[in-house]
Amino acid sequence: MAVNFSVFEDFATVAGVRLGIAQSAVRYQNRDDMVILELAEGAEVAGVFTQNAFCAAPVQIAREHLAVQSPRYLLINTGNANAGTGKQGFANARRSCELLAAATGVEASQILPFSTGVIGEPLNMAAFERGIPLALAQLGEDQWARAARGIMTTDTLPKGYSHCFELDGHEVTISGISKGAGMIKPNMATMLGFIATDAQIDKMVLEQWCKRLANASFNRITIDGDTSTNDSCILIATGQSALTITDADSPVAEMLFNELKIAFQLLAQAIVRDGEGATKFVTVEVIEAREPQEALDVAYTVAHSPLVKTAMFASDANWGRILAAVGRAGVANMELDKIQIWLDDVRIVEDGGRCDSYTEAAGAAIFKQSEFTVRIALGRGDVTETIWTTDLSHEYVTINADYRS
Amino acid sequence: MAVNFSVFEDFATVAGVRLGIAQSAVRYQNRDDMVILELAEGAEVAGVFTQNAFCAAPVQIAREHLAVQSPRYLLINTGNANAGTGKQGFANARRSCELLAAATGVEASQILPFSTGVIGEPLNMAAFERGIPLALAQLGEDQWARAARGIMTTDTLPKGYSHCFELDGHEVTISGISKGAGMIKPNMATMLGFIATDAQIDKMVLEQWCKRLANASFNRITIDGDTSTNDSCILIATGQSALTITDADSPVAEMLFNELKIAFQLLAQAIVRDGEGATKFVTVEVIEAREPQEALDVAYTVAHSPLVKTAMFASDANWGRILAAVGRAGVANMELDKIQIWLDDVRIVEDGGRCDSYTEAAGAAIFKQSEFTVRIALGRGDVTETIWTTDLSHEYVTINADYRS
Repeated sequence: MAVNFSVFEDFATVAGVRLGIAQSAVRYQNRDDMVILELAEGAEVAGVFTQNAFCAAPVQIAREHLAVQSPRYLLINTGNANAGTGKQGFANARRSCELLAAATGVEASQILPFSTGVIGEPLNMAAFERGIPLALAQLGEDQWARAARGIMTTDTLPKGYSHCFELDGHEVTISGISKGAGMIKPNMATMLGFIATDAQIDKMVLEQWCKRLANASFNRITIDGDTSTNDSCILIATGQSALTITDADSPVAEMLFNELKIAFQLLAQAIVRDGEGATKFVTVEVIEAREPQEALDVAYTVAHSPLVKTAMFASDANWGRILAAVGRAGVANMELDKIQIWLDDVRIVEDGGRCDSYTEAAGAAIFKQSEFTVRIALGRGDVTETIWTTDLSHEYVTINADYRS
Repeated sequence: MAVNFSVFEDFATVAGVRLGIAQSAVRYQNRDDMVILELAEGAEVAGVFTQNAFCAAPVQIAREHLAVQSPRYLLINTGNANAGTGKQGFANARRSCELLAAATGVEASQILPFSTGVIGEPLNMAAFERGIPLALAQLGEDQWARAARGIMTTDTLPKGYSHCFELDGHEVTISGISKGAGMIKPNMATMLGFIATDAQIDKMVLEQWCKRLANASFNRITIDGDTSTNDSCILIATGQSALTITDADSPVAEMLFNELKIAFQLLAQAIVRDGEGATKFVTVEVIEAREPQEALDVAYTVAHSPLVKTAMFASDANWGRILAAVGRAGVANMELDKIQIWLDDVRIVEDGGRCDSYTEAAGAAIFKQSEFTVRIALGRGDVTETIWTTDLSHEYVTINADYRS
């Protein structure tokens, strides 16, 4: 079902990152469900996490550990989110870090735990006792492709990105993986993203970049408006390349930032392309807003409207539903006469009504495409925001009505 | 598909209200699509309208006319919402009032127009020229049941309510009809409600009541979170009964208010029961909130979550999805330990995790019912808010992917 999506397998290794994958049977048998990333000493790590108030135990512990010292291991399990699990959930997440610490000789606070899967079930600790030694035995620099598969839950395809380039005379590599297909909304959802570069990046710069990059990518995608309890996005700089970034404002820093932005955006968009039941990949762009928040309010109201989404699924250019969604987005003092709406380059709405030049055939031709842009001009400022979303199909209902059964 | 819903046909007449219905072919042939309500002189009318910024031309004109003088006619068409139709839409809505004014000898400003149906298409004025005389020729006090059918669009069943009772020694009647099945959300959606009583109610009291009643009924229902451009809820007091209300705080006034509240709530709930593709009728009650807005934020976030709604459709007590929705409702400083969640009287969540006494079987038994309540205690105040919603089924997608084709 994934929209214009092909599996990426051609990963470049990132010096300073080794990956190990195991079948630990957290929930299902005979399935890669545990991934360990080992980071060489000296690597810097930054993270952005879910804003759901019911943030899962592993997320809280990852935040806590990240504040203490630079991590040496990331420990990821699928099959169980360890969310909504109360005090026992915390004890289990801590215990998983202790098990990996004991096996590797680092401190438990040097480990970041990540969990994704069903909510509210106790974590199967026997799986960690079984899986950790198996994953550690497999550690290798060339395991990115298997790791991309190992973090999948309802994803139909693994998601990856890799790029090697020369910058300021130095070879640099960026490789990353992501997962997620449902419960996807701004502030990240059951979304995991792990992006690593061998560049050396100052910790302060890295933290600042990770926030900016997530806000331009993983925080701009929505499938169903549901934000998960477990979203995490991690940016790693191992510092093994000769390229060193200390000043975020230098031209070289800007070039590296843009390379990372491509990685973040493609990995985020891959989640939308593989969205549960997705048959369309839709960009919603709001222009001429007064401020970012009102642009985002309009964009998300359109992107979350079940009526707009089902019209997209039906390839029915029912633009009245888009108009109605713009109207209920809660923007104060919106001047209807100034609003314009386009599908790609076909203008539909102007002066509060249907554009004279618009024809049903022109709109239908765009809505039939597997990818298009809905552009909404508010006519009240110069701020632009862009998000990416999917349609709402029968398959979405099937997947989510059957997920646990 | 309607949930625990039976067609109401046994309307009592309301002295001072006559109804006429016609087949005017606004959009479809051979279908009642125009309804006129004639109000006797002396009737008072109050209205509550959509808050969608792209509010349709008839809604704007109805608001304007209501501010000028007491209406003598309501003119309702289905098949075309006359929304997103720009200046021509206004001209057409005004013209429809002028046509009815000319035929009846009242002023155009004594007519309130209402339209529901497809957005963005020009209104077919020939239908009004044809339909208005036909509907006027049919005027009768006993036409409520046919009128209930005449305002339907994607509704599968007509919605009505009627009750005669004695109050303060006087006979009083309340009769009402409503329509709507999709694009339903707080602030009313493609929702029309017309409720009439023969009691005499002071205009100020009537206006105040109409707002309070709508906020306890039509503004507390949601099917898909989409608010229409055309919602209108009208309360009529013809004053032909001997019961007179001038003081809103009197015990008799309170009793009449409560009778009207039952009418409003049952008519609003009927819309949810007949919601597009609905297989469940679900009450979401948020208790122990600090203020109404945060209670509503939590209730609507749960009620709009596609993941919660698909779980309801599947009769899968996947309470983790409810928990995740509560967590992303945006309530500041929510204390997770204080939150409790029940399905009817089965407690699922306490202390931020699954309740020890909860069993999957107990939850599944509730979720299998066609009606149940999700009760969420926030543990931070004493405010309660209640809303009503449906599940999200395959049928919803089918209906909305096919509506225009």
